[in-house]
Amino acid sequence: MAVGQCDFPVMPDVPGIILGTACAGIKQTVKDDILVIAMAGQASCAAVFTQNAFCAAPVQVAKANLAHAPRWLLINSGNANAGTGEQGMQDALKTCADLAEVVGGSAKQVLPFSTGVIGQPLPADKIKAALPAAISALTEANWDKAARAIMTTDTFPKGVSRTIMLDGLPVTINGISKGAGMIQPNMATMLGFIATDAKIAQPLLQACLAAAVEQSFNRITVDGDTSTNDACVLMASGASLAPEILAGTEHYLLFADAVMQVCKQLAEWIIRDGEGATKLMRIVVAEALSDAEALQVGKTIAHSPLVKTAFFASDPNWGRILAAVGRAGVQNMVLEDIEIYLDAVCIVKNGGRDSAYTEEAGQRVMNQEEITITVKLGRGNAVQEVLTCDFSYDYVKINAEYRT
Amino acid sequence: MAVGQCDFPVMPDVPGIILGTACAGIKQTVKDDILVIAMAGQASCAAVFTQNAFCAAPVQVAKANLAHAPRWLLINSGNANAGTGEQGMQDALKTCADLAEVVGGSAKQVLPFSTGVIGQPLPADKIKAALPAAISALTEANWDKAARAIMTTDTFPKGVSRTIMLDGLPVTINGISKGAGMIQPNMATMLGFIATDAKIAQPLLQACLAAAVEQSFNRITVDGDTSTNDACVLMASGASLAPEILAGTEHYLLFADAVMQVCKQLAEWIIRDGEGATKLMRIVVAEALSDAEALQVGKTIAHSPLVKTAFFASDPNWGRILAAVGRAGVQNMVLEDIEIYLDAVCIVKNGGRDSAYTEEAGQRVMNQEEITITVKLGRGNAVQEVLTCDFSYDYVKINAEYRT
Repeated sequence: MAVGQCDFPVMPDVPGIILGTACAGIKQTVKDDILVIAMAGQASCAAVFTQNAFCAAPVQVAKANLAHAPRWLLINSGNANAGTGEQGMQDALKTCADLAEVVGGSAKQVLPFSTGVIGQPLPADKIKAALPAAISALTEANWDKAARAIMTTDTFPKGVSRTIMLDGLPVTINGISKGAGMIQPNMATMLGFIATDAKIAQPLLQACLAAAVEQSFNRITVDGDTSTNDACVLMASGASLAPEILAGTEHYLLFADAVMQVCKQLAEWIIRDGEGATKLMRIVVAEALSDAEALQVGKTIAHSPLVKTAFFASDPNWGRILAAVGRAGVQNMVLEDIEIYLDAVCIVKNGGRDSAYTEEAGQRVMNQEEITITVKLGRGNAVQEVLTCDFSYDYVKINAEYRT
Repeated sequence: MAVGQCDFPVMPDVPGIILGTACAGIKQTVKDDILVIAMAGQASCAAVFTQNAFCAAPVQVAKANLAHAPRWLLINSGNANAGTGEQGMQDALKTCADLAEVVGGSAKQVLPFSTGVIGQPLPADKIKAALPAAISALTEANWDKAARAIMTTDTFPKGVSRTIMLDGLPVTINGISKGAGMIQPNMATMLGFIATDAKIAQPLLQACLAAAVEQSFNRITVDGDTSTNDACVLMASGASLAPEILAGTEHYLLFADAVMQVCKQLAEWIIRDGEGATKLMRIVVAEALSDAEALQVGKTIAHSPLVKTAFFASDPNWGRILAAVGRAGVQNMVLEDIEIYLDAVCIVKNGGRDSAYTEEAGQRVMNQEEITITVKLGRGNAVQEVLTCDFSYDYVKINAEYRT
């Protein structure tokens, strides 16, 4: 069950980026569970990775290979190849070598990504056996299939597309992502793959991705758990006829804004599909002394099980929001300066419940599927937004039964 | 539903400490919901309070009155008088004045405590009306009734008693506590009231309490939410015939150890009664560089919804524990140095699942009601322990339906 309408959009081709999927049988279902993405020879490629200290073997390999002008991504779902020790590293390297052999390239030009259960050995032989099918399926038209192949507990495939015009010539940006639990990305989402036909040098592409991720995937949380496998990749094939995008130009601003929009929408899809989610909660913390302070308060609210269960119950229990703000660790906060709103309804003012507040007004907002909680700290001008979802029976069910 | 046998113990009297309860009707039930504790004239009194920035009105009053040689505690359950603004402060002061009037004392010598729903006006008039009944009920024999009167979502009353002999003369320490949710005490539990007949000066009593709380109530967490009303009080009536307890003596060490035992047991009761708890999880982090580091890792595990739901399902999903250690924010951790145990069963070693581990062995431990998770970081000699419970359907149910 996801929050709101989450239809997969029509995704145009991205010239110079081809995708192929196949079923390796990792998940013991007949669904495709591996995805190969191939980039044109002149492509540039940027990526950001999880900051979990125990990042998975494929993340370590992908990090190292990013310096070798990547040409291929190899993604599998159903198994994270994390907590798998030395064998896991060998398996990650082997899948890269296997793909390189089929396509006649270098193993160092392959970035591997894995998502799924932690701690199970990666069935590298199954992946090897499925590679020819994935390679022969490579085409520019496979975005929908690609988005489906990387799903684990996701209930719908996640895709976004934007096209901008540079000097009258189109540049397309397509993105897909997966993720529904163990979500508090820290430098990257669970998995996000974004591709464009723009011509842009790697360092600028990397800067563009880092800035976009910071304001999108790094502003969402389902349960505060940072995965060992988070990664987000931005590929630029250079196949567009539009001129090269250079730093400090208006073209760059247009492009960076479109990448940001794609990342924000993908991040929002992840929250709409949060495990067991019934509500989308947009937490805006304003009038903070700094961005860091605003973010700290926003994440404390977003992680509070008491706030999240109250939202699940559509209960305008504003006391729990206030208590979460109070324990966020911000020094010298003044209770009397705090204002809290559910959408446009003021619930807290002058140190307590706003005198004009009625339970009916609060209840009306809480009955909605999408709610904005605005907290004004009355200390400064910084504003930050965090997206999260509520905490339901189904969150417990999904995570209690994950391996059964 | 609580974890394990949680019978209320036989509590001896504490000479010089009398307790009385009554039903003020705050909870709309016929259960007693106010508790008055009166101390002998020569008593000393120590207390620690929540560090939530928005501490409730009664906490603010109690903090201020602690300097005025308190003689009475006035506790109500069912309403926290938090987030109640200026009116809340007036109500807290009024209940102190009302009690002082009945007993013929000073309002400044009353410490008020409230626990329950946040953000509702305190029915101070109902409390006033019930004070005479509570006062007339004052006796040394009321520990059981007192423990029941302070309950909110607790499923059983919590009490502990220890008696030590100083020079052949007995000193008794009794404690009661309440709390089941919004539990990550930070300098104090939800509410804890400990009384002794020892003779001991206030500064030493305060130091003794602070040390005990640090290793007990500050090492437990149900949901990571720090209440606005946490407080823990240690009263010493001085009525014992044993000699005065002085700093740096063996008597003090004996006394401090007994107070620590009482606090640890009370803290454990709170976790056993954690909202929806089906398992008691004892998290020991060893071989850390510092106590702070060990605590950071322990609390990250204890707060992880993914770990807690796996324990609810009795699923030895050690990958989630490893992922939580990895995101705890400790710099330069080496995955290969980490060892993780469920009771005596090694699950993680050499960067992955221990080669000798079997799911059967893990499952055997997970089927127990009480489980110790030991994480060895391989970095130093510091050890810290955190107590928590699992995350169940009932946690969501209790907190979703709290106000209905």
